Amino acid sequence: MKTFELSKELIDNISDLILNKNNKEIKKIVKTLHYADLAELINELKFDESLYLLKLIDSDKTSDVLTELDDDLRERVLKEFSEKEIAGEIKELDSDDAVDILSELSEEKKEKVISLIKDENITENIRELLNYDEDTAGGLMAKELISVNENWSVLKCLREIRKQAKDITRVHSIYVLNKKEELIGRLSLKDLIMSPSKKKIKQIYIPKVDYVNVNDSAEDVAKLMRKYDLEAIPVINDDRQLLGRITIDDIVDFIKDEAEEDYLLAAGVSNDVEADDSIFELSKARLPWLILGLFGGLGSVFILESFEEIMASESLRALFFYTPLIAAMAGNVGVQSSAIVVQGLANDLIKGSVLKRLVKEVSLTILNGIILSFLIIGFGQIVNQPIEMSLTISVSMIFVIIVAALIGTAVPIILDKLDIDPAIATGPFITTGNDVIGILLFFYTAKIILGF
Amino acid sequence: MKTFELSKELIDNISDLILNKNNKEIKKIVKTLHYADLAELINELKFDESLYLLKLIDSDKTSDVLTELDDDLRERVLKEFSEKEIAGEIKELDSDDAVDILSELSEEKKEKVISLIKDENITENIRELLNYDEDTAGGLMAKELISVNENWSVLKCLREIRKQAKDITRVHSIYVLNKKEELIGRLSLKDLIMSPSKKKIKQIYIPKVDYVNVNDSAEDVAKLMRKYDLEAIPVINDDRQLLGRITIDDIVDFIKDEAEEDYLLAAGVSNDVEADDSIFELSKARLPWLILGLFGGLGSVFILESFEEIMASESLRALFFYTPLIAAMAGNVGVQSSAIVVQGLANDLIKGSVLKRLVKEVSLTILNGIILSFLIIGFGQIVNQPIEMSLTISVSMIFVIIVAALIGTAVPIILDKLDIDPAIATGPFITTGNDVIGILLFFYTAKIILGF
Repeated sequence: MKTFELSKELIDNISDLILNKNNKEIKKIVKTLHYADLAELINELKFDESLYLLKLIDSDKTSDVLTELDDDLRERVLKEFSEKEIAGEIKELDSDDAVDILSELSEEKKEKVISLIKDENITENIRELLNYDEDTAGGLMAKELISVNENWSVLKCLREIRKQAKDITRVHSIYVLNKKEELIGRLSLKDLIMSPSKKKIKQIYIPKVDYVNVNDSAEDVAKLMRKYDLEAIPVINDDRQLLGRITIDDIVDFIKDEAEEDYLLAAGVSNDVEADDSIFELSKARLPWLILGLFGGLGSVFILESFEEIMASESLRALFFYTPLIAAMAGNVGVQSSAIVVQGLANDLIKGSVLKRLVKEVSLTILNGIILSFLIIGFGQIVNQPIEMSLTISVSMIFVIIVAALIGTAVPIILDKLDIDPAIATGPFITTGNDVIGILLFFYTAKIILGF
Repeated sequence: MKTFELSKELIDNISDLILNKNNKEIKKIVKTLHYADLAELINELKFDESLYLLKLIDSDKTSDVLTELDDDLRERVLKEFSEKEIAGEIKELDSDDAVDILSELSEEKKEKVISLIKDENITENIRELLNYDEDTAGGLMAKELISVNENWSVLKCLREIRKQAKDITRVHSIYVLNKKEELIGRLSLKDLIMSPSKKKIKQIYIPKVDYVNVNDSAEDVAKLMRKYDLEAIPVINDDRQLLGRITIDDIVDFIKDEAEEDYLLAAGVSNDVEADDSIFELSKARLPWLILGLFGGLGSVFILESFEEIMASESLRALFFYTPLIAAMAGNVGVQSSAIVVQGLANDLIKGSVLKRLVKEVSLTILNGIILSFLIIGFGQIVNQPIEMSLTISVSMIFVIIVAALIGTAVPIILDKLDIDPAIATGPFITTGNDVIGILLFFYTAKIILGF
């Protein structure tokens, strides 16, 4: 693959050149790099070097590099850039990227930057986009698009496209509007170049067009584009007027980010942290979940203390030895159940009644529980444990994991109904809850069976 | 959003129409549905109904629907379809989708289906694609693409594109070849329609073209396309000859599938299962991880038994009450560390030496551990626990979670170096290991401190 591999040599080389202010040589190297590769390089430099390099390179490349930098570094860089410098970069960007950068600035700095952009077209677009929530279609869309009128001829259309396309990196669909500027269809470039030049757009456009409303959630947009394999989708308002378009590359990033957040959340790491963040940021993302786990653990201390008297009985004391096993099984089963439900909810695969789903989870857990019980009984026989004890432990464990499965299934469904991201349930939340509840149920069930 | 919402009414309506064999009405409804929506509907029907519907609708729609069906249902459907029927569907599909379906058939049925396709162009493409591993660029690519020669004029180029484009749903880049059929660049449709018709392609093509080798891993292809925001990428062999192209919609699906697999794996669910799979499939995906957890739990039984004598001492017995807390903390910290490392490895963010990373994790864990210790000591004061016991538990816990963090960090890095998917480490693997090791370390540290 013709991939760029960031090498230590390149980093050292650039560092040296910056130290010696050898701007000519730096520019020569930078010229050969794609902006995404350059951003990767800059991420690795010392902050002063990064700043030096960013100020040295051409403005149109700087602006693209800015969109690709690590969030933390970009934040620091923007603090060091003057309003005028930022305005210069913003002008070079597509409206969606421009807004992404602007929204990282303080309210005051943002206003100042916008006031420094003299092109009214740009500021109008930016001001509009800044109004939308970043998790909506409006927050993902860009204003740059190509639209044609249904009454134009192919020839006029080609001419207009040439004009409009100047400001646009990539031409996706061409959107067709009627007199009232309402979106009525689309035109494929392929059809356009294959049609005689006198034909009217009216005769060749495709009236079937997918679109999203500006207020639709980003998640729904991603789902729609993925389902129908769309590379771009127009965004309209409630009056069907065309406001912008969302392209697949933004959706790819969105899907990837969402998946990473869910994955980290499931492991008890909140916010959007990365391995290279500072210790304090990492601690902030991890400590709350550990404290939650700690409270669960302290809850178990209470439960176990309340069964302290059975420590005196040599035959019953074995129950204590099994508590970590029970806690682990309760946690594991709960996490499995909730992960499958969370995944299903995300893909709209959870159909039928909640009751049916719970019944299925219980059946599955009983099946797994019986198999696990054989292993426990076998282990008991090997270590010469009384068979009543092995049976008690097995039955109690099955009971515990059934409840764990029910909790693991129900919690995400309830969270989803309450419009809370169910992914939060798969993590330490379920593990901790099931640990405590599992241990409690285990001792109570054993107490009933063994009658102590 | 103009989204299709699968309603119970529609399902019931179709079921009734199938029961009454009202084919005319069924066809009328099916005609209004996008194939992805139709697949969603068919997924919800009874198997016999699904089969009836699939055989009723037009072949070109059936083939598209087949590519979108749930894997399990498609497998069952293909078993019921004759070789001739499958061959008919395959012919309608792009080569990459055709191969996806073919590779689900038995070796014998596959050969028979291919022999029934009379178009040699198609069978040649299919036979070539069947050779590639599905996790490589070759496994993702399709043969359908548009290529032009550098010596053609814009006019000839447009004519040739019209010819080639007939078989192609969407025109992405146009690839430019030299006399030796080597890939030398690309041509944007935009540039093509903006150029005078007599110009040579040579004069307007873009020599800078990203490409992947047919043997590159699918993951690397996804990373590359995401990084450079590519919508399609050409695939070449070692001689730079153009073999096919990969489009972004395949990559979107790949990224989504990978993320889901990692998420489920982290929760202890292997294979690609969904909430609606059968109980036995779900059990097969979940039981192995539970058994792993069980063995870990049985390991803890041994460890705790070996400390049985301290149950007799009222002052030491409290250590037992804290075992679930210690196990939970060890598991949680380990999972957090490994999740961050796994995520970092996936995004090439783990830079610098392994030693530096371990030092960072340890510092972070000490910071978190100290804060957690204050909570444990506070709790101890409230429940009137001797301060030596609280301190012993705190110190032991910090020691335990440091080791857990080291294991959580090191295991994914080692797995990655061994070319094993490190995502496997975040799940029950780390939790179970850290549970057992944590409990062992906890009791030994306490033993040393308290001198029992």
